[in-house]
Amino acid sequence: MTILDTGIKIVRNVGRFTFGQGAVSGVKDLVASRRTDDHKHAVFLIDDYFQKITDTASSLGALPGDSVQFVGTVDEPTTQGIDALVAKLHGSGHDKPATVVGFGGGITLDTAKAVSNLLTNGGRAADYQGWDLVRVAGVHKIGVPTISGTGSEATRTCVMTNLDTGLKLGMNSDFTVFDHVVLDPSLTKSVPRNQYFYTGMDAYIHCIEALAGSYRNAIGDAYSRETVNLCRKVFLGDDMMNDELRSDLMVASYLGGCAIATSYVGVVHPFSAALSVVFGLHHCVANCIVLNAMQDFYPGAHAEFRKMIEKQKVTLPKNVCANLTDQLRTDLIAATIKHEKPLTNALGENFRATLTDARIISLFEKM
Amino acid sequence: MTILDTGIKIVRNVGRFTFGQGAVSGVKDLVASRRTDDHKHAVFLIDDYFQKITDTASSLGALPGDSVQFVGTVDEPTTQGIDALVAKLHGSGHDKPATVVGFGGGITLDTAKAVSNLLTNGGRAADYQGWDLVRVAGVHKIGVPTISGTGSEATRTCVMTNLDTGLKLGMNSDFTVFDHVVLDPSLTKSVPRNQYFYTGMDAYIHCIEALAGSYRNAIGDAYSRETVNLCRKVFLGDDMMNDELRSDLMVASYLGGCAIATSYVGVVHPFSAALSVVFGLHHCVANCIVLNAMQDFYPGAHAEFRKMIEKQKVTLPKNVCANLTDQLRTDLIAATIKHEKPLTNALGENFRATLTDARIISLFEKM
Repeated sequence: MTILDTGIKIVRNVGRFTFGQGAVSGVKDLVASRRTDDHKHAVFLIDDYFQKITDTASSLGALPGDSVQFVGTVDEPTTQGIDALVAKLHGSGHDKPATVVGFGGGITLDTAKAVSNLLTNGGRAADYQGWDLVRVAGVHKIGVPTISGTGSEATRTCVMTNLDTGLKLGMNSDFTVFDHVVLDPSLTKSVPRNQYFYTGMDAYIHCIEALAGSYRNAIGDAYSRETVNLCRKVFLGDDMMNDELRSDLMVASYLGGCAIATSYVGVVHPFSAALSVVFGLHHCVANCIVLNAMQDFYPGAHAEFRKMIEKQKVTLPKNVCANLTDQLRTDLIAATIKHEKPLTNALGENFRATLTDARIISLFEKM
Repeated sequence: MTILDTGIKIVRNVGRFTFGQGAVSGVKDLVASRRTDDHKHAVFLIDDYFQKITDTASSLGALPGDSVQFVGTVDEPTTQGIDALVAKLHGSGHDKPATVVGFGGGITLDTAKAVSNLLTNGGRAADYQGWDLVRVAGVHKIGVPTISGTGSEATRTCVMTNLDTGLKLGMNSDFTVFDHVVLDPSLTKSVPRNQYFYTGMDAYIHCIEALAGSYRNAIGDAYSRETVNLCRKVFLGDDMMNDELRSDLMVASYLGGCAIATSYVGVVHPFSAALSVVFGLHHCVANCIVLNAMQDFYPGAHAEFRKMIEKQKVTLPKNVCANLTDQLRTDLIAATIKHEKPLTNALGENFRATLTDARIISLFEKM
C-alpha cells in the first residue's frame, strides 16, 4: 500500500484541560470565573442518567437563575432536538450565557457544542452541518465527559442527524472545539460494563482504522498509536474498570479525539454509520458489531477485539441484520458506500471492486 | 517506589498547530491575517543561523516596516538580553505588533515567548521569573521550530538567566504558550548532526526521567511514552535525519513538550542545570553529558543512549569537569541540589542520603 500524506492541516486544540481524580470539583470555580454582569447565568446540559442524582447541577456550580437541561440519550442528537433546545434557552432568557457546561457522554458533549455555536451564530442546526460553516465563535463551553471513548471532548465536530433529510453530519469547525475540558476518571465508575466497553472501543477502533489507512501523517499516527496502546492495557487488563484503567481509558479517549483531527477512519465506520442510519443503533455499539464481522479486513484487530470482549465478559447484540428485506439491503449498501473518503483511505479509490453489493450484504448478514 | 499523583493541574494547550512538510509556507498567511489598521507591523525573531539565508524573513511574510531581529545562539537567553530586545522594539515603534514570530531553536522560541509577554505586561523580564506572575496575555505569537527536541513549542515556560543574580528560571505562565505552532520537518534538514542529536535527546531524557519518577499521572505518562517510542525509532534507526525520522522527531518534540506540563524531571536535569550555570554549557548537550554518566540511576536509558550515540556516530564533549577547584565543586553541588522537586521525584525526600557531596562530585568527574 502506498502511504499518502493527509496534507497540511491547521489543527485547533482544546483550549485548556484539567486531569485527575476529583478534577470535577473544579468545574464550579471555572463556571464562576465566567460569570459577569452582562452574562450572569450559565447553561448546564446534563446527561439524563444524572437526573436521579439530585445534586449534580449544584455540584457543577449551578445557581438559581441558571438553566439546567437534561439531555436524553435514547436517541443520538438530531438537528431538530438541538433547535428545540436552543429555542427553549431563548425563551427562558438564557441565550447569552456565561458558559455552557456539557456533562455526560458523547451525545451530551456534542449537544453542548452545537448549542454553543447556535447561540452566537443564529439560524438552525441544519444550516451548519458540513465543514467550516460556523461563522463566529460560540459561547464559552466546558466539556466534562462521564464515559470514555468517543473523543468528543477533543474533536471539532458534533454529530447530528437531520430527521427531515436523514443527513447525519456534524458542525465541523474550529469553533466547535471546547474551551475547557475536565477529565475526571472518578466520573466513569458507575458506567454499566457493556456500555463502558462499547464506548471505549470507539477510541480503539478509529485509531486502528487510521493506522491501517493510506492517508497518514506522523502526528496523527503518534496519537493513534498511544491510544491503541492504552486501550490494549485497559481491555486486556484484569478489570477494565479499576481506578488505574479508568484513568488510562479517559486519556485514551482524549488522545484518540486528538488523533481524529489529522487522520481518517476506514471500513468499520461506514458500515457502522449504515447500522445507525438504517436501524438506529448507537455509534459505539454499532462499531463493535461491525468490527466483530471484519476479520477479513482487520485480522489483527479482530483477533484482539475477540480477546478483549472475552476477557471483559462483555456481550454484543447478535443478528442485528437478520431477515433483511430488499429495501433494507438497498438502504444499507447506499448508507455504507457514501462514505467515500474512509473507504478510499482503507481500500483505495477502486473500493467498489472489493466492496461489491454482494460482499457488503454478506458482511451485514454476519453482524 | 510509591507512585504519587502529581495533583490536578489545569493545562493550557497550544492554540493551534499546523503539521507537515512545507507547512512553513503557511506562516505568511497567518501573519497577514493578524495585521489590522491598529496593529500593522509584525515582529520576526529569527535564529541568527538564518542570517546567511537572505530571503528567510520575507518567506515568513515580513514586509517593509516590520521588525526583523536575529537572535544570537552563542549564549542561552538572559533577562538582560530580553530587556534590550524589548527596548529596541519600543524604540522603533514595534511595541504593539500584529504578531511575534519566533523562527528557530529553543533559544529563539523562548525569546519570542518572553518578548511577547513583556510587550503587553511592561516591566523587566526578571520581574516575571517564577510561576504565574505574568498578568495579562502577551502579543499573539507564532512559533516555528527549526530543530526538534526542546519542546519549547508546546510548553508554558521560557528559560532565561538573570546575569545579575545568576537565577535561571522561566516565565511559567499560561500566557507563555504559543497561539500557533507550525511544525514543518523540512526545516530541520540542515541541522548539524551532533546538534540534531543533542537537541532531540532533550525530549527523550525528560520523558525517561518523568516515567521513572514517583509523581505521575496518566496523561503525562501517555505523552512521555509515545515521545520515548518515537525517539527510539529515530535514534535507533539507520539514519536519524532521513525525511521520515525528522518528521517523527518533530512530533516527539511537540508531544514531549506536552508531557512537561503534567510531569517532573529527575536526576539528569539538576546535574545538567549545574553544568549550564557553572560552565555555560547549553542545555541539550549538557543533558547528554549527564545521562552518559548516569548508569547507576538510569541503567536502561543509559544503555539505550550508548546504543543510540554509537548508531548515529555522534561525538560528545569529554572531561568537561576536569581539574575542578574547591570553589567549582562547591558551586556544582549547590547548583545541583537546589532542584529539590525533580530530585525528590526521582529519589524521594531524603535524596541527600543518596546524593552526598562526594557522590555528586564523583558523578561530575565522570562527565
